[in-house]
Amino acid sequence: MAPTNAPRFTFGLWTVGNPGRDPFGGPTREPIDPVDSVKKLGELGAWGVSLHDEDLIPWGTPAAERDQIVARFKAALDEAGLGVGMGTTNLFGHAAFKDGAFTSNDRKVRRAAIGKSMRGIDLAAELSAEIFVFWGGREGTEVGAAKDPRDALERYREAVNVLVDYSESNGYGLRFGIEPKPNEPRGDIFLPTVGHALHFITTLDRPELVGLNPEVAHETMAGLSFHHAIGQALWAGKLFHIDLNSQRIGRYDQDFRFGAEDLKELFLLVRLLENSGYSGPLHFDAHAYRNENPEGVWEFAAGCMRTYTALAERAKAFDELPQVKEALAAASAPDLAQPSVDGDDPATLKAESDALDELATRGYYNERLDQLVVEVLMGLHT
Amino acid sequence: MAPTNAPRFTFGLWTVGNPGRDPFGGPTREPIDPVDSVKKLGELGAWGVSLHDEDLIPWGTPAAERDQIVARFKAALDEAGLGVGMGTTNLFGHAAFKDGAFTSNDRKVRRAAIGKSMRGIDLAAELSAEIFVFWGGREGTEVGAAKDPRDALERYREAVNVLVDYSESNGYGLRFGIEPKPNEPRGDIFLPTVGHALHFITTLDRPELVGLNPEVAHETMAGLSFHHAIGQALWAGKLFHIDLNSQRIGRYDQDFRFGAEDLKELFLLVRLLENSGYSGPLHFDAHAYRNENPEGVWEFAAGCMRTYTALAERAKAFDELPQVKEALAAASAPDLAQPSVDGDDPATLKAESDALDELATRGYYNERLDQLVVEVLMGLHT
Amino acid sequence: MAPTNAPRFTFGLWTVGNPGRDPFGGPTREPIDPVDSVKKLGELGAWGVSLHDEDLIPWGTPAAERDQIVARFKAALDEAGLGVGMGTTNLFGHAAFKDGAFTSNDRKVRRAAIGKSMRGIDLAAELSAEIFVFWGGREGTEVGAAKDPRDALERYREAVNVLVDYSESNGYGLRFGIEPKPNEPRGDIFLPTVGHALHFITTLDRPELVGLNPEVAHETMAGLSFHHAIGQALWAGKLFHIDLNSQRIGRYDQDFRFGAEDLKELFLLVRLLENSGYSGPLHFDAHAYRNENPEGVWEFAAGCMRTYTALAERAKAFDELPQVKEALAAASAPDLAQPSVDGDDPATLKAESDALDELATRGYYNERLDQLVVEVLMGLHT
Amino acid sequence: MAPTNAPRFTFGLWTVGNPGRDPFGGPTREPIDPVDSVKKLGELGAWGVSLHDEDLIPWGTPAAERDQIVARFKAALDEAGLGVGMGTTNLFGHAAFKDGAFTSNDRKVRRAAIGKSMRGIDLAAELSAEIFVFWGGREGTEVGAAKDPRDALERYREAVNVLVDYSESNGYGLRFGIEPKPNEPRGDIFLPTVGHALHFITTLDRPELVGLNPEVAHETMAGLSFHHAIGQALWAGKLFHIDLNSQRIGRYDQDFRFGAEDLKELFLLVRLLENSGYSGPLHFDAHAYRNENPEGVWEFAAGCMRTYTALAERAKAFDELPQVKEALAAASAPDLAQPSVDGDDPATLKAESDALDELATRGYYNERLDQLVVEVLMGLHT
Repeated sequence: MAPTNAPRFTFGLWTVGNPGRDPFGGPTREPIDPVDSVKKLGELGAWGVSLHDEDLIPWGTPAAERDQIVARFKAALDEAGLGVGMGTTNLFGHAAFKDGAFTSNDRKVRRAAIGKSMRGIDLAAELSAEIFVFWGGREGTEVGAAKDPRDALERYREAVNVLVDYSESNGYGLRFGIEPKPNEPRGDIFLPTVGHALHFITTLDRPELVGLNPEVAHETMAGLSFHHAIGQALWAGKLFHIDLNSQRIGRYDQDFRFGAEDLKELFLLVRLLENSGYSGPLHFDAHAYRNENPEGVWEFAAGCMRTYTALAERAKAFDELPQVKEALAAASAPDLAQPSVDGDDPATLKAESDALDELATRGYYNERLDQLVVEVLMGLHT
Repeated sequence: MAPTNAPRFTFGLWTVGNPGRDPFGGPTREPIDPVDSVKKLGELGAWGVSLHDEDLIPWGTPAAERDQIVARFKAALDEAGLGVGMGTTNLFGHAAFKDGAFTSNDRKVRRAAIGKSMRGIDLAAELSAEIFVFWGGREGTEVGAAKDPRDALERYREAVNVLVDYSESNGYGLRFGIEPKPNEPRGDIFLPTVGHALHFITTLDRPELVGLNPEVAHETMAGLSFHHAIGQALWAGKLFHIDLNSQRIGRYDQDFRFGAEDLKELFLLVRLLENSGYSGPLHFDAHAYRNENPEGVWEFAAGCMRTYTALAERAKAFDELPQVKEALAAASAPDLAQPSVDGDDPATLKAESDALDELATRGYYNERLDQLVVEVLMGLHT
Repeated sequence: MAPTNAPRFTFGLWTVGNPGRDPFGGPTREPIDPVDSVKKLGELGAWGVSLHDEDLIPWGTPAAERDQIVARFKAALDEAGLGVGMGTTNLFGHAAFKDGAFTSNDRKVRRAAIGKSMRGIDLAAELSAEIFVFWGGREGTEVGAAKDPRDALERYREAVNVLVDYSESNGYGLRFGIEPKPNEPRGDIFLPTVGHALHFITTLDRPELVGLNPEVAHETMAGLSFHHAIGQALWAGKLFHIDLNSQRIGRYDQDFRFGAEDLKELFLLVRLLENSGYSGPLHFDAHAYRNENPEGVWEFAAGCMRTYTALAERAKAFDELPQVKEALAAASAPDLAQPSVDGDDPATLKAESDALDELATRGYYNERLDQLVVEVLMGLHT
Repeated sequence: MAPTNAPRFTFGLWTVGNPGRDPFGGPTREPIDPVDSVKKLGELGAWGVSLHDEDLIPWGTPAAERDQIVARFKAALDEAGLGVGMGTTNLFGHAAFKDGAFTSNDRKVRRAAIGKSMRGIDLAAELSAEIFVFWGGREGTEVGAAKDPRDALERYREAVNVLVDYSESNGYGLRFGIEPKPNEPRGDIFLPTVGHALHFITTLDRPELVGLNPEVAHETMAGLSFHHAIGQALWAGKLFHIDLNSQRIGRYDQDFRFGAEDLKELFLLVRLLENSGYSGPLHFDAHAYRNENPEGVWEFAAGCMRTYTALAERAKAFDELPQVKEALAAASAPDLAQPSVDGDDPATLKAESDALDELATRGYYNERLDQLVVEVLMGLHT
């Protein structure tokens, strides 16, 4: 399972295993044995898998059977040479979580959610997962009057603090990633964006162990720039994991194949990731279209990886192209890395502000630069 | 100018003074002398005004004339008995800021923006403004490749640090408010939401002096719950100022009269504000429809205040209504203020998670509660 | 079952019967026997119900059993004194429709969809439904390249023509309603808005028998004004049925209780409906929040009707209020009903356009009018 | 000015002439003499230009001067070898139109708008424009109560009827194009989408002379598929003209360079246009970023044309690629052109619907097809 120089692509068991159920129709594909997914993903060149507790161990499985399932799964991972990118707990599927998990108005539900997460952390540690993710899909409201948002955030913080403590006191050495989302399945979800989650982390007892798991589709649902979001996460040193997929703005959570939408934004994303030194898994949290049969699922998975690889190559070519270097210079892009002020006297700075009219005449050549992005992306400079 | 028990309503000079220009047409109303706005707002019962430097002192005004303008304006404030809620600098109107102000790729522009802001801070202090606001409307991109978002955030941070230092070293005693916005006038603005700005503040040199100035329209453009955003800002102790108006999701920045859209969300907002002990100005950052004449401007201003007052009364009535108390109890809303865990053993919590099936059967009576919100809002329980 | 003067409220069996399943979690409520729904809705004061074939007759039911189910259901309707507002066919739930029904790329699926719809029409006629609805939820694409949209529209037209012919040749006397929706469950649905469907109807063989079934949530998902959409449908004489609920812009299909969102738009809608002479059913296509138990379902249903009734009363009061009449006159609202031209010579009209500067000075007093809407809605003028 | 086989690219005078004004800041570029735009566009390889009356003849120009301006402009067109794609009237810039033009509540304004349009039609005819466009940017409301939408549509229809009659009675031989837009500058615009406008056309006195001028940015603001919209317009025989640009969903009207956003949707659009036999102008209704200087404007214009040309080549390559043909066949895409029914007996069709379970098992291989779109677009198959 040693990481190689190749990109470390991972897929959630729930992604290739997605049966195609949606709010208006039942499943269109049979469930897949996780062991088969491991085998197939290994053949396709993935580095590893990710999972919720219930992706592997159905709710209600007796303890002894649970251990057998885990052992069989670990054997499959070993055989396929695959690692586990991240583990997480399903706190959204069971009807008990219909009002939330860590922020349910029912204290018993909150406690059960914490208990279930402890077991999820145990499983993640047992599988040597690199990171444990909190996606608070049910933490939110349709009816704003039902929850004081301050109380909800306080309960959310309490739960994460308790769980990070639990991991540390067991010596698991796990790091944690919070996954923001603006809405769906709740009308309004707490910690709706990368920004809200970054702030939340600063309020935790052990902020150094908690970072982000941002998802393309989630920021995009709210029409926010994912490229900028990842920029702020990297700037904060908090990009611990990433969920890659595609989505149109202002729609239900589509989780399309990586590359299926908004290629320019994905180009900027991949360029930023590749240049940033991010070394975590490149996790595809997507699923095949509902009208695919099982064969289409694996075409979907291969497509995600092919497009990421192609974008990374194009990003590299972009940065090496002489015209691009010139266009970046014409845009003064490198200048932005220079401090604006160097112990200057306020009077100096005030006086410089009188020169606005002169400063207004120059151009920034952003059309040239963006056209080059489009042309390199389309392979017109290869 | 002593604050009274009455709500401290303020209006930006640019709001009642908005001439009706939009991207497709010129002004429909004459400019208003700020002194006339002060007089008229005083008559309507406002507590005070807010202003950008250029709302009062046109760009390019010689220094001597500037002082006369300020003196005349202060006299008008005194006469009308009005205070100044907040001051800010216009870093978006001049063509020099077309690529940004604190985050322009041109270092000279960044320095000029800092210098102009220092003068704006001087003016705000001279007018005894309670707070100084940073709205980074031009801090963003249409072309993602033109700015590394990490560099941009670093420059943004540098500028705010320098300016807070400037205020402190002059003994101004000002507090600062960052105003997030997702897009318009730039394609993607840095610090797009309340969450991103809350995180940014934690990275500053003097975070205790910097809070938020959230605006209804801005979070709403991205479809985020403003009620939840204010909840997180209050939870963080960072609600320093607020911009009240109305907006439909996913549209251009409409800045409609407070109450013109989404009455239920505004009801929840006003209830939260009134119950939170927030004591800053209630600032209307809105403007009259473009098809209004000057008379309509003052009807607009009166409408903002009337609707806020009516919502505050309805919120009070809501919390006093016996059926509401019952519905909140049925929703277990008060329970959310109780800690979930009290030094429990992990084994206990894990065991409690086995009870999910039992926990799933109860209802939360949110339909009842939300219907009461609607009915109280409509005055059906008075 | 004779209609009375009271509003003819109807509920789909699938609305009160919604079990709370969503893409991230299973059902939270037990299925309800349609006979029990009929009884309960009768007690609450509804006029009738609506249904898909499969709401009453599960897929795969043998013919003899089918007839027993229908007979039992008709008896329940008789006993409760309820009518059937509309019938429709479920062409979205079965996995066979995963690529579309009338516009599936597979001809056999298209034929099966037409055949299933014929049976649905038989059932609707048997139950004396007033209207038969086509909601093409699966008619669309995630992958634009997979369907030529011109072919898809041609197939859609063919199917509707065949089915209207079928009804006519059986002497059923049914009218038909097309229900547009922009997206979900497909990425992009054909006939996405009221406008597209109105145009489509003009291309049919028997356009006089086909109108619209617009839904609040569907136009709202795309951020379009439902009030304007109903205006165009009424103007075209095509408002045959209506689906009432609530929705936030740019989200998944929420189908909230009527009144839960955007009260002002709903006030304008109810006012338009009540003043238009629309006499079809007022059909609530909504469902209770997922965190409700069975008791909450009936609170939800009662809330829909109570809010409609309250809005209708407020709309009546609005039109009778002297200030409103004055504000409408100040806005020149009645003037819009007057033709602009009366056989004028072009030269006259051209000359009149020289007077734009004079025409620009007047105001339209829309702030006053809209503030009155808000105040009447809030019950401040009762 | 004879059209060649090359794509007939046109640019509005207002597009390359856009001075960079936006709601938050003044112009950043000097106005351009239309004659200079003509010259420059000719050098860049455009086929022609489009214009509003006021793009060429400033409001208030005396008649004699007007004729000189027109003569000079025609000479410039001749010299550059450029044609006029379309003409239109500015009914949005003057403050008189603040409440609408054809649908203003003030009858005098409506008459002036018709008169101004007659002059605009005269100018378009004089310049041999191929089409005359109606963009009703001010036809709408912020305050729904201010206009009965049925009255507004009736006035809209009256105006278009009168103006088409005017053109015909002058023997101009013009065709007309309606340009829908959902919002901005009004809160809600009448005829918000391609669908609404297609229906509206069917209500006109001379529907055969009136078609559509759809714009990428406008449908996209509402999150609707432009590819599907153009499909319905072509199906209706109503694609008379097209406005090409780029836009992100749910934002202010960005009018970005063609290709700047959503490359896959634009690929599908260009493929559809090229395969449809559409022979009208390919009109770029876009403008350079506000931070560009004059040099950037022409880079912007060149970029629009380069990207269209590249997409057209890629679309051709796509349809010729053997793997694509196979993927289309696997998706049964060609099958959609076949009628579903061929005089079949209803009993046959009903019986076929019993076979749904069998029909559910096949896949449609849409992942494969869409991945090929992405790969061809990226130049991975050249």
